[in-house]
Amino acid sequence: MDFEQLKDRLDALLEKESLGEMRGALMMLNVVDIAAYMDTLEGENLLKMYRILPKDISADVFSYLSEDQQQRLMRLIGETETSRLVGDMYVDDAVDFLEELPANLIRRLLRNVDEEQRKNINAFLEYPENSAGSIMTAEFCEFHEGITAKDALKELKKNAPDKETIYTLYVLDPQRHLIGTLPLRRLLIAPDEAPIEKIMTTGFVSARTLDDREYVAELVRKYDLLSVPIVDNEGRMVGIVTADDILDVIRQEATEDIEKMNALLPSESEYIKTRPVKLAMNRLPWLLFMMVSSILTETIIDKFSASLTIAFSACIPMLMGTGGNSGSQSSTLAIRGLALNEISPKDALKVLLKEARVSIIVGAALSVLCFGIQTLVFGRTVLEAGAISAAMLCTVILAKTIGSMLPLLAKKLKLDPALMAAPLITTLVDVCSLLILVLFASSVA
Amino acid sequence: MDFEQLKDRLDALLEKESLGEMRGALMMLNVVDIAAYMDTLEGENLLKMYRILPKDISADVFSYLSEDQQQRLMRLIGETETSRLVGDMYVDDAVDFLEELPANLIRRLLRNVDEEQRKNINAFLEYPENSAGSIMTAEFCEFHEGITAKDALKELKKNAPDKETIYTLYVLDPQRHLIGTLPLRRLLIAPDEAPIEKIMTTGFVSARTLDDREYVAELVRKYDLLSVPIVDNEGRMVGIVTADDILDVIRQEATEDIEKMNALLPSESEYIKTRPVKLAMNRLPWLLFMMVSSILTETIIDKFSASLTIAFSACIPMLMGTGGNSGSQSSTLAIRGLALNEISPKDALKVLLKEARVSIIVGAALSVLCFGIQTLVFGRTVLEAGAISAAMLCTVILAKTIGSMLPLLAKKLKLDPALMAAPLITTLVDVCSLLILVLFASSVA
Repeated sequence: MDFEQLKDRLDALLEKESLGEMRGALMMLNVVDIAAYMDTLEGENLLKMYRILPKDISADVFSYLSEDQQQRLMRLIGETETSRLVGDMYVDDAVDFLEELPANLIRRLLRNVDEEQRKNINAFLEYPENSAGSIMTAEFCEFHEGITAKDALKELKKNAPDKETIYTLYVLDPQRHLIGTLPLRRLLIAPDEAPIEKIMTTGFVSARTLDDREYVAELVRKYDLLSVPIVDNEGRMVGIVTADDILDVIRQEATEDIEKMNALLPSESEYIKTRPVKLAMNRLPWLLFMMVSSILTETIIDKFSASLTIAFSACIPMLMGTGGNSGSQSSTLAIRGLALNEISPKDALKVLLKEARVSIIVGAALSVLCFGIQTLVFGRTVLEAGAISAAMLCTVILAKTIGSMLPLLAKKLKLDPALMAAPLITTLVDVCSLLILVLFASSVA
Repeated sequence: MDFEQLKDRLDALLEKESLGEMRGALMMLNVVDIAAYMDTLEGENLLKMYRILPKDISADVFSYLSEDQQQRLMRLIGETETSRLVGDMYVDDAVDFLEELPANLIRRLLRNVDEEQRKNINAFLEYPENSAGSIMTAEFCEFHEGITAKDALKELKKNAPDKETIYTLYVLDPQRHLIGTLPLRRLLIAPDEAPIEKIMTTGFVSARTLDDREYVAELVRKYDLLSVPIVDNEGRMVGIVTADDILDVIRQEATEDIEKMNALLPSESEYIKTRPVKLAMNRLPWLLFMMVSSILTETIIDKFSASLTIAFSACIPMLMGTGGNSGSQSSTLAIRGLALNEISPKDALKVLLKEARVSIIVGAALSVLCFGIQTLVFGRTVLEAGAISAAMLCTVILAKTIGSMLPLLAKKLKLDPALMAAPLITTLVDVCSLLILVLFASSVA
């Protein structure tokens, strides 16, 4: 059954006000789909549906609602009921919801939440955006030295319902320093009386609360982990980041890079839900920058118009287009290589040599084709076509050098390499390629 | 300890030929790091290190080696020993390794592998690239109706070491159709005598062997799954795809899209390991296409050179640059929105209206700035500056329309939307913006 069908049937049940049937239908669905359905409801229907939800899944469903819908529902059910939801949600989901609210409302909502949950939420709200702390959750399974495998398993069974994941257990010393990790798989096959410190792994990986979330994502990917323990500055364990949150991080980071590489300010909201004015504001900065910098190209053409005969000025778009694309090919590979930790600024010389060889192959092929087009299609003289082709070769080599080196330089200077992508590279290459063309044009004039 | 230090110490131990110390050191490391270290070794040292590896982790370490290193090691240890590794590896890892080898070598290697593993591997080798079947593994935990929670747990403990994941169990009927899934968490807290068909979930999600791997990735992300069951065309369960494999899929798909969007043929190999000729071949197709299509722009300029006075021809780079970037902004958002399932071709009208409003805001801002620059910086007449600004406004609107609609059209026609990115959009917009400029230029001439 696809989502449209599901929505039609649930709409009908909601219309009928048949509580029993609706409860039965909900039992067949998972919380993600229920939340997706509730995202389509408004006003009275939204409230009616919320009232039908079994209490034990309402907090879970609430965490999967869209931001707007969460706030709409909050206004419908009032602050006391919202408080209860916040108390029942996993800390990381509660934080995601609260982050968007004004500070005084957060304070009121947290007033009725039990103290431990409130303390956790407050601590989490203070971690900087995109840090490991900001995406972790406090509900992990902790154990202390001395307990046997059998007792650990018994305790685990008791606590399982409240934990975000039970598939990796964390062993802490009395000062709450992490001393080992224990996959549930290994606990299951261990002898009953084995003390857990004998079966745990001490060679675990961990991250700090202030580490970038991309670093955590890299750990999960590299070591195929289900969760990463997060420790504070004193090495005490404070939370875990689970693999499912990492999937979202990897996607968001890729989207951000793609946006930056295409002359857009990165945005976290979905395109279809963003207002036109906001979309325009994300697009204007680069466009304005490029327009202002095109004063340079216009000046060059103005100044050298005497030597730019029609043969030369007609090929400016081709030269600039090829140059811009050659450069953005190289910068794309460098930026993505840096993002995936496949290259680092230390590899600059290696990259430069490789790009040199690539650009000679590519440039030579393009120059030959260019010469053919200029003489055969447009009937330019051999001298003109030769000058244009030579300008083409130089432009490609220069574009690939600039394109591959700027991202590495940005990384070295601790700037974001993705900013050195097409928009900036193209602008730079435009100016350079024009100068090269003018040089060759005036030498044959 | 970072990787450089780790490598130095292991190098020293390998040099010393101290078997005991090396074994001890390896016990402190995980297989990913051991494989990363072995990736740096050559010839005799690689073989020496392999001989030191404990037998029970050698297959695991082998799966994490780079492709080249796997083949190098295979030549060093011979086909019989490689056969043993293939027999011990998880099916999906074995398939990844074998895929790169010639067919007759695969046959020889599989000759010594036990029959079940061989059958599985052969079946897997036949799934098309990028299908769910090609990334799944056959080692999942299956149970049949009638067994109690207690017995299931007992059986699980026995089989745990051989399974890729034990955290979701799959319940099959006698015809091997999947009838339910059971998270280990729920099994742990169930009463001992509960039959598993009473505690399993029947509202599970699954995919088919021929579904695209991106579809599986979307399921994992949307429903926060640890693994997805894969069924064949008759609905019989044949494997699972685990979340850690999905992380790689999401990254690879993002990389592919980024490459396609920047005039590159997508490539699966790391930049730094790819030969210059191969890199050049990935870059030439789009560059050649764009050069050939620039015959159009050159023809237009050639033909209308009379009305393109210096005021107009000098602003061609600015006009094309702004048009190209405006278009690629819109196509980027459309392509990414399609990839993340946030928009679909059905939303075409909604997108068109949104882009219309955005492009009027952006176009108006740019036109005003453009008019200012043309009159104040370059001293063009009001008539010239007005015509250029009007051309600018039309170009932005047209570029955003083309940029947002072509990816949706591609999706509708079941083509890859990422192909409708910067390179193609820019080429189209270049021609259109030139025609617009010529139109305005000749109207004021």
